[in-house]
Amino acid sequence: MSLLETTISNIRKELDPAALAAAKERLCNQAKPPGSLGIMEDISARLAAIKGTLDVRLTNKWIVTCAGDHGVVEEGVSLFPAEVTPQMVLNFAGGGASVNVIGNHAGARVKAADIGVNYDFAPALPIFHKKVRYGTANFTKEPAMTRQEAIRSIEAGIEIVRELEAEAPVDLLGTGDMGIGNTTPSTAVIAAFSGLPVAKLTGRGTGIDDAALANKIAVIEKGLALHEPDPKDPLDILSKVGGLEIGALAGLVLGAAARGIPVICDGLISTAGALIACELAPAARNYLFVSHKSVEIGHTYMHHRLGLEPLIDLKFRLGEGTGAAVCMELLDLATRILADIKTFEEVGVTNIE
Amino acid sequence: MSLLETTISNIRKELDPAALAAAKERLCNQAKPPGSLGIMEDISARLAAIKGTLDVRLTNKWIVTCAGDHGVVEEGVSLFPAEVTPQMVLNFAGGGASVNVIGNHAGARVKAADIGVNYDFAPALPIFHKKVRYGTANFTKEPAMTRQEAIRSIEAGIEIVRELEAEAPVDLLGTGDMGIGNTTPSTAVIAAFSGLPVAKLTGRGTGIDDAALANKIAVIEKGLALHEPDPKDPLDILSKVGGLEIGALAGLVLGAAARGIPVICDGLISTAGALIACELAPAARNYLFVSHKSVEIGHTYMHHRLGLEPLIDLKFRLGEGTGAAVCMELLDLATRILADIKTFEEVGVTNIE
Repeated sequence: MSLLETTISNIRKELDPAALAAAKERLCNQAKPPGSLGIMEDISARLAAIKGTLDVRLTNKWIVTCAGDHGVVEEGVSLFPAEVTPQMVLNFAGGGASVNVIGNHAGARVKAADIGVNYDFAPALPIFHKKVRYGTANFTKEPAMTRQEAIRSIEAGIEIVRELEAEAPVDLLGTGDMGIGNTTPSTAVIAAFSGLPVAKLTGRGTGIDDAALANKIAVIEKGLALHEPDPKDPLDILSKVGGLEIGALAGLVLGAAARGIPVICDGLISTAGALIACELAPAARNYLFVSHKSVEIGHTYMHHRLGLEPLIDLKFRLGEGTGAAVCMELLDLATRILADIKTFEEVGVTNIE
Repeated sequence: MSLLETTISNIRKELDPAALAAAKERLCNQAKPPGSLGIMEDISARLAAIKGTLDVRLTNKWIVTCAGDHGVVEEGVSLFPAEVTPQMVLNFAGGGASVNVIGNHAGARVKAADIGVNYDFAPALPIFHKKVRYGTANFTKEPAMTRQEAIRSIEAGIEIVRELEAEAPVDLLGTGDMGIGNTTPSTAVIAAFSGLPVAKLTGRGTGIDDAALANKIAVIEKGLALHEPDPKDPLDILSKVGGLEIGALAGLVLGAAARGIPVICDGLISTAGALIACELAPAARNYLFVSHKSVEIGHTYMHHRLGLEPLIDLKFRLGEGTGAAVCMELLDLATRILADIKTFEEVGVTNIE
């Protein structure tokens, strides 16, 4: 079997039912009205079921920011020039970018990954060097990549999880992206899966105007009409209208799920990757948390399809893993809520009759 | 002048305009699309304007959980018996309650305050001992308290801020509440200010059923009809249909604002207190952050009246300061976003043309 196939087959179909039941019972017995900590209680129970304990410790946290370039940028879909992709990878490696600052606040380490940047990074640069090719092709003219490259991009993400764990077991993984133009392939991915009209799914990325938005919609429609990706074949969608970093983002989710690591995805691009992962292996969803509701309108449709609710809505539209990093603190907190809030019995408070 | 009057007169009418402008400029020059960190950027700019610096440090954080009992509980408005109020105060002092766990995660210290609990706590118990009376009267029969007691409850909150600062300057204050039955007076407060129908504002508190909800609405309507509180006189509203801890929660906001301390309020009850504070002293709003959107429906109307947007919606309905505690981490993060994310120039990334 290929690495991709092995990884998918290693994902458990079900979380620990005993830990889940014990978590729910403890949450009900804590000295507070049942369910009064809302979504945080659900998160804490699921983390307990993933880890098989009521005292989960999310100590070793990583955010991996996958980068790739996009041939479709030559169609004028982004405000920023493509040269910003490698510049930002250098910024991540230097520690001064948004995801570094927010990740640091969450107690997570951040490492970028070159999956398909159109630039040669120095081998000593402290990033994951996993280049599959120098950016995708322009999908309005040819497929973004071959099916084999799509598989390799996913396997790059799987390998990254393995390499992180070779150092020390990972307790929580966050996913993030960098790639000028990558809201365009991400929107194409959800359009291909859902069959919904492109105009209904397309947002303004880093801030394009009305005319540029109309162009972006036309570009995505053109790519979908040209290649007719099969909505039942995630690899077909990824290869025809996806992105190299999107494949790696799917691989991060699959690799984490196969190793029993909870994984939290970021905005539109990370969620496109997570969607591909869960379409390939539905059980991966048990390990997946979706962090924030992006300003990008296609994001909500991805969440619907995943059947997962985002935790926060802070009007982010940045990517990099910034939303995932913010939510890492909430997942960490959820573990403390379950383990540390005392029960009625423990503290001698009168429960409801 | 009274302590209340002095405090109100000490609140600056305007935040530091130079720091605000410098913060906005830096946020625009950071290597990310302008505004892409959404609400967090607004928060970071306001904190800079409050503190007069772009490198705000929220080190000394406190959550004060104000407790009081409510005579109106005898009308059957709550699932839990009134004896839970003092039991939970003991739980806060012991460190095992929800707000302790969440506050601890946020790096904040938590201290409860007895403003009007119907119980004699041992003088050595590590809480603020500020009892104004042993619970309010049942407002369906007589005013909840006298006007003088209402002023004293507010001044108790002001004194607490002063006492905290006597130890060390407070960088961020969170407010929380405990008081069985206190969603009833809090809903009465917003109904009295807004004139909106009580049924439109009333939620299920800790989880009452349909019949109990109808009773709760009738109880609030009865109190408002009996006392006709003056919507232009916050002290009249507080004394007739409010609560002792609600007064202290208003005092915390006023005391913090007068000392230039950012203050973050919690759910329905804390926000009722914040509303009274801002109706007494509109400039207090500059220092106020509203944390979460409670499941309680009256909460949204309070936010509308304050003109402030809650940061998160995690379906909390607990109180104690739990929502404020969660959001303290976000305010802390906002300071790092402003100070630590590098500019395009600093990291050599190409900006939009």
